Amino acid sequence: MPTTLITNGTVVNADAAIRADVLVRDGRIVALGTGTDWTADHVVDATGKLVMPGGIDAHTHLEYPVDGFSTHTADDFHSGTVAAACGGTTTVIDFVKKEPDRTLYDTYLRRRDTAAAKAVVDVGLHAIVPPRAAQPDVLDDLRRLVGEGATSWKFFMAYPGQMVDDDELLDGFELARDLDVLPMVHAENGHMVAREVRRLVDSGRTAESFHMRAHGHDSEAEAVHRAVVLADSIGTPLYVVHVSSAAAADEISQARAAGSRVYGETCPQYLVVAYEDYADLGERAAAYVCSPPIRERSNQDGLWRMLATGALSTVATDHAGFCLHQPEDLPPQKLRSPGYFPKVPNGVPGVEDRLMVLWQSGVVSGVIDPCRFVDLVAARPAKLFGLFPRKGVVAVGADADLVIWDPAADHVITAAGSHTRTDYNIYEGMRVTGRPVHVFSRGEHLVDPDGLRTDTPGRGAFLTRAAPRLH
Amino acid sequence: MPTTLITNGTVVNADAAIRADVLVRDGRIVALGTGTDWTADHVVDATGKLVMPGGIDAHTHLEYPVDGFSTHTADDFHSGTVAAACGGTTTVIDFVKKEPDRTLYDTYLRRRDTAAAKAVVDVGLHAIVPPRAAQPDVLDDLRRLVGEGATSWKFFMAYPGQMVDDDELLDGFELARDLDVLPMVHAENGHMVAREVRRLVDSGRTAESFHMRAHGHDSEAEAVHRAVVLADSIGTPLYVVHVSSAAAADEISQARAAGSRVYGETCPQYLVVAYEDYADLGERAAAYVCSPPIRERSNQDGLWRMLATGALSTVATDHAGFCLHQPEDLPPQKLRSPGYFPKVPNGVPGVEDRLMVLWQSGVVSGVIDPCRFVDLVAARPAKLFGLFPRKGVVAVGADADLVIWDPAADHVITAAGSHTRTDYNIYEGMRVTGRPVHVFSRGEHLVDPDGLRTDTPGRGAFLTRAAPRLH
Amino acid sequence: MPTTLITNGTVVNADAAIRADVLVRDGRIVALGTGTDWTADHVVDATGKLVMPGGIDAHTHLEYPVDGFSTHTADDFHSGTVAAACGGTTTVIDFVKKEPDRTLYDTYLRRRDTAAAKAVVDVGLHAIVPPRAAQPDVLDDLRRLVGEGATSWKFFMAYPGQMVDDDELLDGFELARDLDVLPMVHAENGHMVAREVRRLVDSGRTAESFHMRAHGHDSEAEAVHRAVVLADSIGTPLYVVHVSSAAAADEISQARAAGSRVYGETCPQYLVVAYEDYADLGERAAAYVCSPPIRERSNQDGLWRMLATGALSTVATDHAGFCLHQPEDLPPQKLRSPGYFPKVPNGVPGVEDRLMVLWQSGVVSGVIDPCRFVDLVAARPAKLFGLFPRKGVVAVGADADLVIWDPAADHVITAAGSHTRTDYNIYEGMRVTGRPVHVFSRGEHLVDPDGLRTDTPGRGAFLTRAAPRLH
Amino acid sequence: MPTTLITNGTVVNADAAIRADVLVRDGRIVALGTGTDWTADHVVDATGKLVMPGGIDAHTHLEYPVDGFSTHTADDFHSGTVAAACGGTTTVIDFVKKEPDRTLYDTYLRRRDTAAAKAVVDVGLHAIVPPRAAQPDVLDDLRRLVGEGATSWKFFMAYPGQMVDDDELLDGFELARDLDVLPMVHAENGHMVAREVRRLVDSGRTAESFHMRAHGHDSEAEAVHRAVVLADSIGTPLYVVHVSSAAAADEISQARAAGSRVYGETCPQYLVVAYEDYADLGERAAAYVCSPPIRERSNQDGLWRMLATGALSTVATDHAGFCLHQPEDLPPQKLRSPGYFPKVPNGVPGVEDRLMVLWQSGVVSGVIDPCRFVDLVAARPAKLFGLFPRKGVVAVGADADLVIWDPAADHVITAAGSHTRTDYNIYEGMRVTGRPVHVFSRGEHLVDPDGLRTDTPGRGAFLTRAAPRLH
Ligand SMILES: [Zn+2]
Ligand SMILES: [Zn+2]
Ligand SMILES: [Zn+2]
Ligand SMILES: [Zn+2]
Ligand SMILES: [Zn+2]
Ligand SMILES: [Zn+2]
Ligand SMILES: [Zn+2]
Ligand SMILES: [Zn+2]
Repeated sequence: MPTTLITNGTVVNADAAIRADVLVRDGRIVALGTGTDWTADHVVDATGKLVMPGGIDAHTHLEYPVDGFSTHTADDFHSGTVAAACGGTTTVIDFVKKEPDRTLYDTYLRRRDTAAAKAVVDVGLHAIVPPRAAQPDVLDDLRRLVGEGATSWKFFMAYPGQMVDDDELLDGFELARDLDVLPMVHAENGHMVAREVRRLVDSGRTAESFHMRAHGHDSEAEAVHRAVVLADSIGTPLYVVHVSSAAAADEISQARAAGSRVYGETCPQYLVVAYEDYADLGERAAAYVCSPPIRERSNQDGLWRMLATGALSTVATDHAGFCLHQPEDLPPQKLRSPGYFPKVPNGVPGVEDRLMVLWQSGVVSGVIDPCRFVDLVAARPAKLFGLFPRKGVVAVGADADLVIWDPAADHVITAAGSHTRTDYNIYEGMRVTGRPVHVFSRGEHLVDPDGLRTDTPGRGAFLTRAAPRLH
Repeated sequence: MPTTLITNGTVVNADAAIRADVLVRDGRIVALGTGTDWTADHVVDATGKLVMPGGIDAHTHLEYPVDGFSTHTADDFHSGTVAAACGGTTTVIDFVKKEPDRTLYDTYLRRRDTAAAKAVVDVGLHAIVPPRAAQPDVLDDLRRLVGEGATSWKFFMAYPGQMVDDDELLDGFELARDLDVLPMVHAENGHMVAREVRRLVDSGRTAESFHMRAHGHDSEAEAVHRAVVLADSIGTPLYVVHVSSAAAADEISQARAAGSRVYGETCPQYLVVAYEDYADLGERAAAYVCSPPIRERSNQDGLWRMLATGALSTVATDHAGFCLHQPEDLPPQKLRSPGYFPKVPNGVPGVEDRLMVLWQSGVVSGVIDPCRFVDLVAARPAKLFGLFPRKGVVAVGADADLVIWDPAADHVITAAGSHTRTDYNIYEGMRVTGRPVHVFSRGEHLVDPDGLRTDTPGRGAFLTRAAPRLH
Repeated sequence: MPTTLITNGTVVNADAAIRADVLVRDGRIVALGTGTDWTADHVVDATGKLVMPGGIDAHTHLEYPVDGFSTHTADDFHSGTVAAACGGTTTVIDFVKKEPDRTLYDTYLRRRDTAAAKAVVDVGLHAIVPPRAAQPDVLDDLRRLVGEGATSWKFFMAYPGQMVDDDELLDGFELARDLDVLPMVHAENGHMVAREVRRLVDSGRTAESFHMRAHGHDSEAEAVHRAVVLADSIGTPLYVVHVSSAAAADEISQARAAGSRVYGETCPQYLVVAYEDYADLGERAAAYVCSPPIRERSNQDGLWRMLATGALSTVATDHAGFCLHQPEDLPPQKLRSPGYFPKVPNGVPGVEDRLMVLWQSGVVSGVIDPCRFVDLVAARPAKLFGLFPRKGVVAVGADADLVIWDPAADHVITAAGSHTRTDYNIYEGMRVTGRPVHVFSRGEHLVDPDGLRTDTPGRGAFLTRAAPRLH
Repeated sequence: MPTTLITNGTVVNADAAIRADVLVRDGRIVALGTGTDWTADHVVDATGKLVMPGGIDAHTHLEYPVDGFSTHTADDFHSGTVAAACGGTTTVIDFVKKEPDRTLYDTYLRRRDTAAAKAVVDVGLHAIVPPRAAQPDVLDDLRRLVGEGATSWKFFMAYPGQMVDDDELLDGFELARDLDVLPMVHAENGHMVAREVRRLVDSGRTAESFHMRAHGHDSEAEAVHRAVVLADSIGTPLYVVHVSSAAAADEISQARAAGSRVYGETCPQYLVVAYEDYADLGERAAAYVCSPPIRERSNQDGLWRMLATGALSTVATDHAGFCLHQPEDLPPQKLRSPGYFPKVPNGVPGVEDRLMVLWQSGVVSGVIDPCRFVDLVAARPAKLFGLFPRKGVVAVGADADLVIWDPAADHVITAAGSHTRTDYNIYEGMRVTGRPVHVFSRGEHLVDPDGLRTDTPGRGAFLTRAAPRLH
């Protein structure tokens, strides 16, 4: 494998931004230096640019079955990871949901193989813990999955067929603690949400925009509070996926201030898109339907403040794209049930947009600095999900997953200019200053200013992840 | 200047611990690498050792006048920085207190010169903002001092002659905000403390151990709360020195959770020593008298939790050593007023012990990991006090202030084995596993396993510091 | 019915203590006056005494089935109300638990008739809402029960066979809100408790004193938090029975401070008895086993503070007496499973002791004053449970349920001197100053200094209660 | 003195509302009864009406010097108490501020005599504690004033010439605690306010409406927090006058939840008037200038919630009327410095409007009930200021200070229809349903449906008040 030298750039890590050349050999960073006389087969001049670790999107749903396996998301591991790469993300961590006729363990192995066969960047998988009723011996499978690199397990506190009760949470948390696994929760009080859906439907309020009404701030905040109490009682850390409500983020903030080891993830859609953006779109509001929902604009301030204070630890996408116009080769997508929100497939895309959107809304706007940006999108997810310092940092010994970021480059986000199969973009028309111009994955030059250089399915590796690092 | 290569060590930064060789040239780190064929004039094998940035003690008082200039601390800039170096600390930031017949600016310049002439490691100076009554035009001096590298200013919320009122805090905070300076507060409600001292004295309770009674948790917590409100009203960040009360730390924690940019410093004496250790020592309790006081053992848990949560950002020493046995060449020391606590010079030593004590009580005990250790003792103070990434990190381009730490080395802390002039040690007899075996300051090899290699006065540089970095 | 005049006493209500004569006719108070020339058939001189409303114990379990109807409490409505009367309590509100082969409605009517046939003082009944699985149409029954005076419904958040999930809570709370009924919760997280029981049993820790370990402060506090969120989401007030943990009381306190209409009840056993009192009693610790458990002594301070602040609104007993020595005519009592805590019938007696114990520990000790005492034991329960101002106040028009209290009378509490069928007393040997010397129920003179004057079964009335008054 | 009988009314106390006749003799209530055959010289039929204790306005400023004695309020003790009586208020508690050439004690006696000579209803006086600099021996005077009935002392935390520092607060609080006096604070951080005034003036923002900008929520909340810490450290209860900011009220709420005995007062102007009502009035905004200021409309919700939760204990007026049109016989009034807010005399009228405004906005609107209304305007101030149960309750033995309230009577509030000398009304045009139709002061019939029956100066008594009752 040829060596690569990136010269004259500013290396931006979570901790520090320094001027250094970066030398890459055999897919790894072997040296950083200044005033060097190093040579390499391939030299990239990064003058005026930032050299950052490749983005890690710890929350995606590629070729992912939803609604009781009645449909699935539009992107497969190929198109999804191509989109990721083009956006500067060199690792995605997706989910495994037990299939009806297969154990969790078997589903995991199959999905691992699918991912490994198609992915263009590296991929890991979180295991979703099914209700005990669906697989009574699931704890045995979970135990085995740690050996397969699934060192993070997600529990649903809501949704029929996925929701587990507190006893199952406690059992799972205990096993996670014993095996040094990071438990994750989708934190909404399922009883509260289901009841609100019923009330809305019963009263005829089924238009797409009513989706948000069913998912109250209180139901999210309550679930966060309870999950923290349960995790603390067991003595395990906890990761809360897709925090959407500032009230829920505040529960995390309070718990952290009191000593709980709880980590919150939020997503760009909650930070920069608002209910007001889709409330009046009629059935096309389906494009914005995800859970928890994209909330009132007044909610955004609190989330930004929590990002700034550190109460929120990561920014992922929950990328789960569906099309508005039904493609022939896909099962029913966003508009399969116009006017009836409970049947709209939940999810929005974003894996390609995440870095640019957060850079624009966070860094350019002055709320966070480039180091914190790297922390949120790469270093912290790497740490929490057992990939650090292999990934998430530009450091000697790390995988050469690198993004050369041009902070001066202008760009307009559009669906047409994106690589996801989703046919719309919730950031359509957003102007950003700052974008990835080169992307390397384990030393391989995937993207350059002219675009994608390679999209070989399967060049991405499946990641067997280690234990979480909490600090 | 000869080049130095440190091989086979584990480089520990706040962010990450990685295996890398470190190449030093002209006092700076010029490269980190793995599998290198680098050579150097001087090669140190760090197999099995940790290579960390040199410690930064952001709170010392060397040859420092106290009690209305009636006496001063035992260590001068030479003995104090020798002690620092021997303990793995390569930077100290001390204070300038306006002298009675001199402006703050003139005092600063004189003290800068004294430090530069004597110091063995690098030294910076915080400016202490005198009451307006003592120097009406002090804001002009402060403005000029930024140019001299005093990018942090300390305000006393207590103590006659030093205490400023809220209006002075607001004026100072505003100027600090405008000049990108970090304001610091000694946070105790001076009225509450003075009143308690009076009550104790009036009732004959003047023994040394009563000192603690005069400094209630409530007076410290109140002052923190108020300082945060004032800083928030101005829009400035805030640094709270020597947080001793868990209740005060909790105020910081709550404020941070709510979005305030407030940073707390604590000290080893508050973390591992307790009132119970000296309450019965009679007049020798003077050895432990400092302000805020070393508190009840039950208070320690809260401080450790706040360290773990991040509510406390740094660990410094407030090193202010006085002798128990009066040396001939020093003004009256600890026992100048036996049985009468108000006249005991306040302060305890620690600049040499800080790293070992925190490593033992924090890292060996499992509360924090080596990365967080580096954050507390080097990276975070470097960031907050305008020295990062010049110091506080083992990175390309940084000063080669390096500690090679042997995590397996046993050591017993004693006054006899220390380099401070103080003739006792509040950690006497403490066994630690983990200590510095080599210390470099800007590439110069100051300490090796045989001890101090050089103590040339003035080899330390005076540091003109930049603006704080808050993240 | 003869008229009664109580002269020269100090009338103590929750609001005020005033000097006034009290004139009673036809079972009701018809006048209060000073300097009167009123006459009556029966005149009681209350010089130096306090005239208070009769106590209302809003939480008792008389002839009450437990453990799946496998046994029941020792007192029936006769012995239990005799004990109540002797202790100055003229109203008890007990519970109805749906019997296996009977609807809740039918069980209620039967229990109402039993109570009416046996009681010596007035009795009301709270309805316990069974799990939906046990009676799918239970909401219909609840609706009907309001007409029968059951304006308060209790939900169990713990215990197999009784525990309801959040959806059932929401349904019940909504109906309660619509019908102006006060929902009550037994607030413990049933999943957490059941799991701890299992863990203790699995590890052989089955001795009686381990009972406490299974019921963590966190499980109680979590349940309170969640119940408040659910109640707030519906818009209903909420009553939390038997708050035992200061952490749970603090959740109530915080919620009230934020505007939630939540009311906490605690019991004398939590205020003055402690785990340390029975931890070493071996199987006789069974005498103290109740749920939530009697906790660590260090927990008491918080409860008292919450009583003082008003975060706790009432003091009831949860009177559920069982015998240590097995009587022939009763099913298995406290010692039916020595050494195995999960089978110990839960509950402690107290209906006769409540006023004296709280007076001694609260009023004599100076924490609360006599007005607050009346508020806690009579006025507030009367308001919350739809009996005010018919009961709970010495006022014109109110039932003449009166206690003449001698604040100077000494008394020692003993099982031997009590009227409950329980053969032990958890306050055994407690000396109190202050006791009831006369007790009137609707004008009838039940108790005088020589003791009980009448114990006719059925003289007590069944109370059809009105809607709660919340202020 | 003739006897009076009020028949067929509903007696409303803080605790309960009951049907009862009220018999009055010699200025006191001697009996309450139902179904009586009582007779009296004077019988008032209260069918359909409420019989409530006369209002107690614990915060007025009649003929009160302001701005360094440069002017004074428009109402004297005669016109002010006439207005009070017409509005249903039978007691006012005003303030004594030490005059420049007189001790506090002497000023108090003079002002007491003035009040006694002019007042139409009963009057008490709080003592304002001057800065130590103004009267070094002020604690001696305070000690003597307790004997004169001044059992409440007010401290200013703001305003030049009145502001005391924390040490003075602590001294005063300690003496108050020892003498069973209730300390009161005007809680604003004087340094913050003064600085904002300066900044506004310096930048030319001197229009009347800028007054509000100088008094931040944070300065009020900070002062409340600090006053509570100081009071808790001494062990004294605390009364916070005129809480205007919901953030400050929240500090009280949090402190109470944590066990502090702190009581908050708010005023109708903060509850129903808003900054938006006067921001655009130009110099006539002077009519609304008071301190703390009338704040943003968005602030009102929090205050109402705090009234509902009990965090706020009383509603007084801070009645301090000045005229818009300058009367000949008064010193310069509201418009003495058009366009320059720092010289506008602070204060708004309200003593006549308080009950009607709070009834309409609180009771008619459903936020509070009539019992809570009585608590806020009469019972609680009576308790806290040493007048209970002499006043503040319709009870046997109490002064016959009675209001017969017609809850069905409509009324429109106007300046023209008011009795204060102020020539405008901040509630002008407000329609209310509910007003006083009869008012009695110590049994004397002052007001009937035709209006004022007597206004004899000096018929009001000066009140020597007892110790506070806190519950
Ligand atoms: Zn989810
Ligand atoms: Zn998801
Ligand atoms: Zn200090
Ligand atoms: Zn210091
Ligand atoms: Zn229960
Ligand atoms: Zn019970
Ligand atoms: Zn005021
Ligand atoms: Zn005032």
